[in-house]
Amino acid sequence: MKDAKAPIGTATDFVKETLAECRQATLPALREAVEGLHPRLARVGAYHLGWCERDGTPTDLHPGKLMRAALTLLSARAFGAGTATAVPGAVAVELVHNFSLLHDDLMDADETRRGRPAAWVAFGPGLAVLAGDALLSQATSVLADADGAPPHRASRALARAVDTIIRGQAADLALNHFPVDRVTGEDYLAACAKTTGLLCGSVEVGAALAGAPLPAVRALSTAAWNLGVAWQVADDIESVWGDAAASGKPPLGDLRQHKRTYPVIAALRSGTPAGLRLAERLDSDSGKEPTDAELLALADLVERAGGREAAERSARDHLDRALRALDRAVDPATAENGLTALFRHVVDRHDWRRPTAEPGPVAEGAAT
Amino acid sequence: MKDAKAPIGTATDFVKETLAECRQATLPALREAVEGLHPRLARVGAYHLGWCERDGTPTDLHPGKLMRAALTLLSARAFGAGTATAVPGAVAVELVHNFSLLHDDLMDADETRRGRPAAWVAFGPGLAVLAGDALLSQATSVLADADGAPPHRASRALARAVDTIIRGQAADLALNHFPVDRVTGEDYLAACAKTTGLLCGSVEVGAALAGAPLPAVRALSTAAWNLGVAWQVADDIESVWGDAAASGKPPLGDLRQHKRTYPVIAALRSGTPAGLRLAERLDSDSGKEPTDAELLALADLVERAGGREAAERSARDHLDRALRALDRAVDPATAENGLTALFRHVVDRHDWRRPTAEPGPVAEGAAT
Repeated sequence: MKDAKAPIGTATDFVKETLAECRQATLPALREAVEGLHPRLARVGAYHLGWCERDGTPTDLHPGKLMRAALTLLSARAFGAGTATAVPGAVAVELVHNFSLLHDDLMDADETRRGRPAAWVAFGPGLAVLAGDALLSQATSVLADADGAPPHRASRALARAVDTIIRGQAADLALNHFPVDRVTGEDYLAACAKTTGLLCGSVEVGAALAGAPLPAVRALSTAAWNLGVAWQVADDIESVWGDAAASGKPPLGDLRQHKRTYPVIAALRSGTPAGLRLAERLDSDSGKEPTDAELLALADLVERAGGREAAERSARDHLDRALRALDRAVDPATAENGLTALFRHVVDRHDWRRPTAEPGPVAEGAAT
Repeated sequence: MKDAKAPIGTATDFVKETLAECRQATLPALREAVEGLHPRLARVGAYHLGWCERDGTPTDLHPGKLMRAALTLLSARAFGAGTATAVPGAVAVELVHNFSLLHDDLMDADETRRGRPAAWVAFGPGLAVLAGDALLSQATSVLADADGAPPHRASRALARAVDTIIRGQAADLALNHFPVDRVTGEDYLAACAKTTGLLCGSVEVGAALAGAPLPAVRALSTAAWNLGVAWQVADDIESVWGDAAASGKPPLGDLRQHKRTYPVIAALRSGTPAGLRLAERLDSDSGKEPTDAELLALADLVERAGGREAAERSARDHLDRALRALDRAVDPATAENGLTALFRHVVDRHDWRRPTAEPGPVAEGAAT
């Protein structure tokens, strides 16, 4: 039997296999859902998903992890449902995920995705918006066709998730307009909803399709919410101190854009001299493109103000809470269904832990 | 008793009263739905709907006809449902309508709406896209909360409508990329779905909330589809030969943009010398802004090729079919519920009939 509670190093193969199995179960139905759109929108969708070039030529790009599909399938499995029951849910959450990516790339003016021009750059904003709309609409349809159990709990869970990620994106867009010294942890969590909302939706849809009891679904959703926050904070840490080459993101990108990330907010609210100097620097933005040396100096201020440490603590805490809630939701004896291992993987795949950090989040996580 | 079958001149007051009553029933719940969004998106939505200025100051603009809400309420009423039962449906179809307007204005680069800057101009494309997403998501939620009757027929009807209008918008965006001589009536009808889809959805949602029998819902939907085509064709006629001041649109706007409207398509497919000359002119587009004289010459070619007459005939035919299907769907004895009068009004409010036309569409429509 595979040991889902083994330290992350040995769990990786298990997680990889589980993800690959879930991906194989989801991809054919996901392709069918995208191919069912109007041909022009199907092309935009397939391009965005990395399946083809702009002219329709198939690519050999990796189809992506389909993490949300895996969360849905494994959540359903934890409550005794077979893959066939849960695949429409897995397809729906991936469609919603890609709807939000298509629209967010445009909103955030992110010009690349998977190392290629983003869909709004390749096809123009109009077709990218419409293709996003079509993926969202298709998600609703795919799930409604499968969501037999009254009172349509899975469809309701998906609708709630869509509402939540839209609110989260609105909060995120607003966040960077707040004066630097007024941003709170709550503002940060409100923006996190753009990530957490669909993670909650993914596990809730899977559990609902399996007819899981409501208290278990609630605990599972709490687990997914905490997982989402841990993920987001780890992402923030990675974007400043991580290996840019490994993450595929521009180095110090979040600092360059003056994003209100967790470490920056924690540093600004620390009341330390370094935090005050950081606030002055961010306030006195000249509008000029900062040099790498200036960005490294900002990163140093964030770290000296305790922002990095606070973020690391937050990521660990939220992962701990996620794993505890997961144990309440799902009989730990069924942990080999892969959810626990996947949860750890989601956070630990980020390169956010300092080599010097001990006892380290893995040991703590394993102790819960 | 009010006579819904009276000629249009005398029916107008009845229609106006009916529309006003439906609007009053819908507006409070519609406001509540928009105010329930994230505050930044609620502002964009309220501005787009004409309720406030960009800074939130309330306006005294007319709240619009809320035609789709009226179709939903009257359809529910025709099957014995009270207003309270149908209002969530009326709110949902208006939310979907405004979702599509917000996104379409951006896609079509339409910079004004209601004589003010369109939302994407006033707030930027990102917030306009996100506000549209939020209205769509809210529509689903509002209706799901009210849609008690299994198997959630109203929600399914709304989802189908959303799918259809997205397909229609994709077909419409594609239409103007076709070579002039290859555009068919079917292509035109596919693009019409952006209008017809939500008219069908509006009546289906209302009838479903009232628990109407399926054959009646199908007939009602057929009626709405034909109404939508008649409306679109009448709109096309109006945009070339109508009173620009009355319609609030730029004179000859569709011709200026080389839109593939019904009269133009009919003229191009007429095989007449005028049709061939029209095709040459449209093919040899120099890219220069055409003069008004050149546009008037184009309009003259369309008319001499029979495009105007074919369009008038199509609008009349589709209105006739709509009214016949309506009679099948709803007991004509209950016609005083206002649906018949509203159907006529939707098409006849367009200034598309020539003063010389006889016996005229009103007389024909009344004879069915």
